Amino acid sequence: MAKILAINAGSSTLKWKLFVMPAETVLASGMIDRLGLANSVFTANYGDGQTFKMTKDITTHDMAATLLLEELKELGIIDHFEEISGIGHRVVAGGEQFKDSVIITEQTLSQIEALAEYAPLHNPTQAYYIRVFQKLLPRVLQVAVFDTSLYATMPQKNFLYSIPYEYYEKYGARKYGAHGTSHRYVSERAAELVGKPLEQLKMITLHLGSGASITAFDHGKAVDTSMGFTPLAGITMATRSGDVDPSLVAFLTEKLGLKNINEMITILNQKSGLLGLSELSPDQRDIEKAAPTNKLAQQALDIFVNRVVKYIGSYVATMDGLDVLVFTAGSGENGIGLRQNIGDQLAYFGVKVDPERNHIRGKEQIISPESAPVTTLVVPTNEELMIVRDVMRLGHNYTALD
Amino acid sequence: MAKILAINAGSSTLKWKLFVMPAETVLASGMIDRLGLANSVFTANYGDGQTFKMTKDITTHDMAATLLLEELKELGIIDHFEEISGIGHRVVAGGEQFKDSVIITEQTLSQIEALAEYAPLHNPTQAYYIRVFQKLLPRVLQVAVFDTSLYATMPQKNFLYSIPYEYYEKYGARKYGAHGTSHRYVSERAAELVGKPLEQLKMITLHLGSGASITAFDHGKAVDTSMGFTPLAGITMATRSGDVDPSLVAFLTEKLGLKNINEMITILNQKSGLLGLSELSPDQRDIEKAAPTNKLAQQALDIFVNRVVKYIGSYVATMDGLDVLVFTAGSGENGIGLRQNIGDQLAYFGVKVDPERNHIRGKEQIISPESAPVTTLVVPTNEELMIVRDVMRLGHNYTALD
Repeated sequence: MAKILAINAGSSTLKWKLFVMPAETVLASGMIDRLGLANSVFTANYGDGQTFKMTKDITTHDMAATLLLEELKELGIIDHFEEISGIGHRVVAGGEQFKDSVIITEQTLSQIEALAEYAPLHNPTQAYYIRVFQKLLPRVLQVAVFDTSLYATMPQKNFLYSIPYEYYEKYGARKYGAHGTSHRYVSERAAELVGKPLEQLKMITLHLGSGASITAFDHGKAVDTSMGFTPLAGITMATRSGDVDPSLVAFLTEKLGLKNINEMITILNQKSGLLGLSELSPDQRDIEKAAPTNKLAQQALDIFVNRVVKYIGSYVATMDGLDVLVFTAGSGENGIGLRQNIGDQLAYFGVKVDPERNHIRGKEQIISPESAPVTTLVVPTNEELMIVRDVMRLGHNYTALD
Repeated sequence: MAKILAINAGSSTLKWKLFVMPAETVLASGMIDRLGLANSVFTANYGDGQTFKMTKDITTHDMAATLLLEELKELGIIDHFEEISGIGHRVVAGGEQFKDSVIITEQTLSQIEALAEYAPLHNPTQAYYIRVFQKLLPRVLQVAVFDTSLYATMPQKNFLYSIPYEYYEKYGARKYGAHGTSHRYVSERAAELVGKPLEQLKMITLHLGSGASITAFDHGKAVDTSMGFTPLAGITMATRSGDVDPSLVAFLTEKLGLKNINEMITILNQKSGLLGLSELSPDQRDIEKAAPTNKLAQQALDIFVNRVVKYIGSYVATMDGLDVLVFTAGSGENGIGLRQNIGDQLAYFGVKVDPERNHIRGKEQIISPESAPVTTLVVPTNEELMIVRDVMRLGHNYTALD
């Protein structure tokens, strides 16, 4: 029995979850919000429904990590730090080097740091947390789990852009994908629920959260995904534009009188998507509520569904069929109307959503009728579980090497 | 009987074709190449297979237009300028104003000039030629035929990008499409050949030339197209990238040490696509020839086909089916292997290409077997014919107004 901690660090948040493995039971979970700002909030859920919440200025990543460990002891979730035998870290960019999760060594950690230019807001912070935990718990096995490594199996024709080939060779300009840990988890779980090996299925997984992406699995391999060189590409998201004509970036940079292109990229990341289209909210729920009387809100929803349907169509074409369709993440797990709407528009491909079965939120369920050629499911994502599973898998090999 | 001239002006070329209408017979056709440079080349094809070719410095658009008219007389193709009773001009950008072709007036001409920012390399030149012909043939009816007006029927969910809505309202930031005249011609002709009204068909037209685009027609209306705000977007082209993650534009601008984003857009327009991927040639024929022994050439072809197949899949999804698939333009009319390859990858949708029927170049032919659920055809495009038809159609109304 091992206690394994999953760490998901963003620039101003730290999400964590402590598992007992291999039982896969959650001992505690929580997050630090407003990290680096005044009045940061530390939250922990543990025991049989207990919650602990504390407001405190947590100004550095070192403070955040130290506080987390101390509170775990303080709240009686662990007795000694030594009980934690592994930590798994989410890392956004794994480049082409990391085709799987990896045990942290000085070398792998340096490589993660060197990949900063592919995820400037994430990799440096995530690498920093690994260093902090190395100091705090020097003997503990740490593992990096990459958002991108799932996509190591993509064929070149799907990951290359139609730009000078040397830009791929020299600068790594290619499609890397994102949300890989989520797509990996739900694809494996969906195959279990359907009762067939992933290797025998054509599957499309829809991660529809604030960030959103679509992945195609052809007989167990991730063959294509809507995220691109960065997580800006693909379908419409909460605040991200997804695909736009590259010329538009130049046109708007000039029209808006911006200082440089990076300001435009920031707008495409932070003020676009559902928020930009609806002029109301980045939240699908707010937009859905407003839609019946708000033209822009309705239109934002229509566009979101339209982009999802188009990507699915393109993947059905390249995979020559579809067996399983999976909804996950915020809107995927909870958007009853959204799922029905998407399903209805995919009738041509044999997708059917049964309104009664679909009337659920946040739980595993097959939502297609028995008779439908495509099995459609809701599978709540669990990236943290995937992370600690990888710690166990790699840690096992590691020990075996000793 | 009327003689109508179709003019297709680019920045350094002037293509022309003189028709007898309504018979739709071609009296002469030709082009001026290397316009504005030394040793410009004037070519005319006329009579029963005669060709006239002349090398001369044609330094201005005024010179080009004057020369064209004079050579028509010189070569005995016309006796008097007065025989020409109408001129139709291809105009690249029609913005949202022009939902159909239009008779040239001072007002419409000013509007065309004002749309320059949407097609900086084309609209100013095309408007200039209209002015030149107004001077040379002041009484002749002139009509502008827009590449974009076909797409006036696109629903908003397909033409809007997921960016702040005000950029559409203020700056016209939206998808406009391109190649509309070609897609319009082949869609109408394909419906005739299939023997069903366009209004009863779900049709996808593939214009696969040096520029390349795909248009979806749902019961007679163009509902979506791969070209975007500019003709840079969409599928892989000869030298254009088609779709890329917008973040990549920023990343490469910096990596390549370019002065500004426009230099990057130029690379995406002129050095990307098949040329950039193959490091060999922008010409599909060269690449096809090299492919068996050249990995990059094979890969460029694979990527080209992949993007075509994906767009088709996305349109089949949104139209909920497909009845007719049409190939046109250079590679579409002549790429026997290419058509077979694309057709083979669309089996799921009921597309089938019969190798024997497909063994043709540059002529109208149904290339699917009788039994195929989707009728697949080759229809050589004829934008000039579409242009002069529009001159006749609008001219007829015009006279009626007098």
